[in-house]
Amino acid sequence: MEGSSERFESFIRQHLEGYLAEIIRLCEQPSVSATREGLRECAPLVCEALQDHGCSARKYETPGSPVIVGHATGKAERTLLLYNHYDVQPPEPLEAWTSPPFEPAVREGRLYGRGTADDKGEFVARLAAVDAVRAVHGGALPCSIVWLVEGEEEIGSPHLAAFVREQASMLGCCGALWEAGGVNAGGRPVIGLGYRGILAVELSVETMNTEAHSGKAHLLPNAAWRMVWALQTLKGPDEGITIPGFHARVTPPSLLDLELLDAMPLDDDQLRATYGAAEFVRGLKGRDLRRRVFEPTCTIQGITSGYQGPGDKTVIPHRAVAKLDFRLVPDQDPDDILARLRAHLDEQGFADVHIHCHGAMWPCRTDAHDPLVGLTARTGEQVYRKPAVLSPLSGGSSPAYAVANTLHVPVVTAGIGYWDNRMHAPDEHIRIDDFVAGACHIARIIEELALL
Amino acid sequence: MEGSSERFESFIRQHLEGYLAEIIRLCEQPSVSATREGLRECAPLVCEALQDHGCSARKYETPGSPVIVGHATGKAERTLLLYNHYDVQPPEPLEAWTSPPFEPAVREGRLYGRGTADDKGEFVARLAAVDAVRAVHGGALPCSIVWLVEGEEEIGSPHLAAFVREQASMLGCCGALWEAGGVNAGGRPVIGLGYRGILAVELSVETMNTEAHSGKAHLLPNAAWRMVWALQTLKGPDEGITIPGFHARVTPPSLLDLELLDAMPLDDDQLRATYGAAEFVRGLKGRDLRRRVFEPTCTIQGITSGYQGPGDKTVIPHRAVAKLDFRLVPDQDPDDILARLRAHLDEQGFADVHIHCHGAMWPCRTDAHDPLVGLTARTGEQVYRKPAVLSPLSGGSSPAYAVANTLHVPVVTAGIGYWDNRMHAPDEHIRIDDFVAGACHIARIIEELALL
Repeated sequence: MEGSSERFESFIRQHLEGYLAEIIRLCEQPSVSATREGLRECAPLVCEALQDHGCSARKYETPGSPVIVGHATGKAERTLLLYNHYDVQPPEPLEAWTSPPFEPAVREGRLYGRGTADDKGEFVARLAAVDAVRAVHGGALPCSIVWLVEGEEEIGSPHLAAFVREQASMLGCCGALWEAGGVNAGGRPVIGLGYRGILAVELSVETMNTEAHSGKAHLLPNAAWRMVWALQTLKGPDEGITIPGFHARVTPPSLLDLELLDAMPLDDDQLRATYGAAEFVRGLKGRDLRRRVFEPTCTIQGITSGYQGPGDKTVIPHRAVAKLDFRLVPDQDPDDILARLRAHLDEQGFADVHIHCHGAMWPCRTDAHDPLVGLTARTGEQVYRKPAVLSPLSGGSSPAYAVANTLHVPVVTAGIGYWDNRMHAPDEHIRIDDFVAGACHIARIIEELALL
Repeated sequence: MEGSSERFESFIRQHLEGYLAEIIRLCEQPSVSATREGLRECAPLVCEALQDHGCSARKYETPGSPVIVGHATGKAERTLLLYNHYDVQPPEPLEAWTSPPFEPAVREGRLYGRGTADDKGEFVARLAAVDAVRAVHGGALPCSIVWLVEGEEEIGSPHLAAFVREQASMLGCCGALWEAGGVNAGGRPVIGLGYRGILAVELSVETMNTEAHSGKAHLLPNAAWRMVWALQTLKGPDEGITIPGFHARVTPPSLLDLELLDAMPLDDDQLRATYGAAEFVRGLKGRDLRRRVFEPTCTIQGITSGYQGPGDKTVIPHRAVAKLDFRLVPDQDPDDILARLRAHLDEQGFADVHIHCHGAMWPCRTDAHDPLVGLTARTGEQVYRKPAVLSPLSGGSSPAYAVANTLHVPVVTAGIGYWDNRMHAPDEHIRIDDFVAGACHIARIIEELALL
């Protein structure tokens, strides 16, 4: 079947102008989940696109933005789930864009615009893949496809897990392709096999109803000090998280995970130089460093308290706020961590520190031995003509858990991205050759899924 | 001599319109040291006022604002130094003033305007006192007066100590009346005998050249955590300052100091209610609480790091800043404390935490047994007809050290203030009766100084 790659590529290049026009149409419609701008207008465009490509499409209301579910029936019942999202990040700062974010423009083999990479371009690449498979296979798909396209990914997919639970029968599949796949800096296809979970919280403490003169510091309680003392009970300078039971549900990486991690290309010096860091946390390097992705983290995202202007102001702050996120590894549970955090603060004498939960996602992972992983890697190597990189666990988080942990299916990535897509930033773009290659890769997976 | 109080009061009330006009003239001239607005214009007005009242006056340049020194020769060589300042705090927020800050207005027995209380009104009260003493004593002063009027008090008097050192011979005196004296809420004259010093610093740490995604928190160093860990080495939840040698030069209060502290009126519940604090630091109350003024403090004035907007943002901050002040008790030395802070941070592994010094003032105190204290208290009790309150040490800081520690003379307060003057705030004002009483009190001190 290897020869079909060339036929897929030939088909997609032949119809490339049309696919780019479809991306442009979707990207011209702002759909910013952070502000809710244009979400209601964008959802029908997704349905239309699915229908235009011979798939059924139905819009489902949720407490947030609509979810669209599409189906394309193939020769085999074996079904592949394709996840995408139609919402995008806010376009600001507008002045930093070379061309306006919602007026997509092609320059030097790239298509620029908000949503081109994340994730409307990828959605269209999958439509192109379905077209190509049908064209090459005489109009029929060798396997069935179910599309799951949501509109709240950029705000943490707060309603996706509940939707998947409720609609599980409609989403039946043997595996899923998640978003945000693509190639690394060396042009090798990267197959993501899992994500860390996240618990995002805001800690706040108020010791007085107004700030006071620091000449009274021997009398009046300082909220900034309360926060410092509370925070330092969570993690010490050795980076060890000291909340009792925090690590109780941590599953260590398998030997295969470690092998895959050790095999991943990672240029320590380059990464350090990019951020201008004197050294990595704990002074780790190389293998020890990359294996740390299997340990959970506790990050202060920001702290604010008291006077922050120029010079000094002799005041005692009455209020302090710290935003934190915990990146969780399999099989930690953000609900469990939140309860442990509260109990720990209480136990340490910080019952006055209030916790507000900003959001949670669960960790999830796919076994590297799963046949879908092998298929994705093998077809990727054929299309890109370079060895695939298997990434057992991403440092970041993803709503992929909503599918993986609910439907109990393998979830992998394959797509049109590359390391410098400027996702979430000005001048977001895709390279048009990546679009073609990514669509070919998806087509190859669809073509062979029924053979697994 | 007790009868002279009435004669002083009579004289001052007779000429009250003129004195108020002088305050208004000085207050109409903005002189904001924080912005340098109007300082050069205000200094000559101070010279003119001194000369108008029969004193010599000379303006001295400093690296900052001019200092004015005035002299009035009396029958005795014994000399009293009168300290005032002609600079004021910024008037903002302007919309919170009932009448414009630089258009002084009389309402219901009060004179409103920026500088009326702090410190132009007090300066004029002392001119009135000199007039009154001369009038009652046939044109002659029983002691000599030296005026020291600076223009940088509201920004920490950065050039006053050097000026006093250089011009010590010209400032010879047997004691000084500082600014900001007056009566407490019970109408009792408060005689301040000392101030804590201060060291104000900004700690900053930078771990990267830009913020990073918190999915990389197992790799990249977090500046907010560095700051939390550095800060918690300075002071623990028991409020104990843990910098080695920090307390080395602390002189404990004398038995008399403790007696005076214990005798000071302090309504714990009222103070707590004012700030809405659940309890005071360390849960202290009453006598134990007020004695804490003789212990140094370490205050976080403010902390800033990373993301501080609404919701959360999954970032690792690359920079963190904390502003701190240390209130120092006799005989701590801010230079010594700064060196110990640096050594401590280095020793604790925080050589990467940079220290920027925002300013320093030294602690100073006057022995409660000093004859000038007795004179100030006794005359205060005669004028106000209530027992004086002796405050052995203020929780705040003052440039009084520049005179006390350089000229080695007692420094006390006596003046026109009361607890609700709104100094540094909108609707700053003096009560006109306080002006008269404060001027009488100063006149009585001048009258009797030579008899000490």
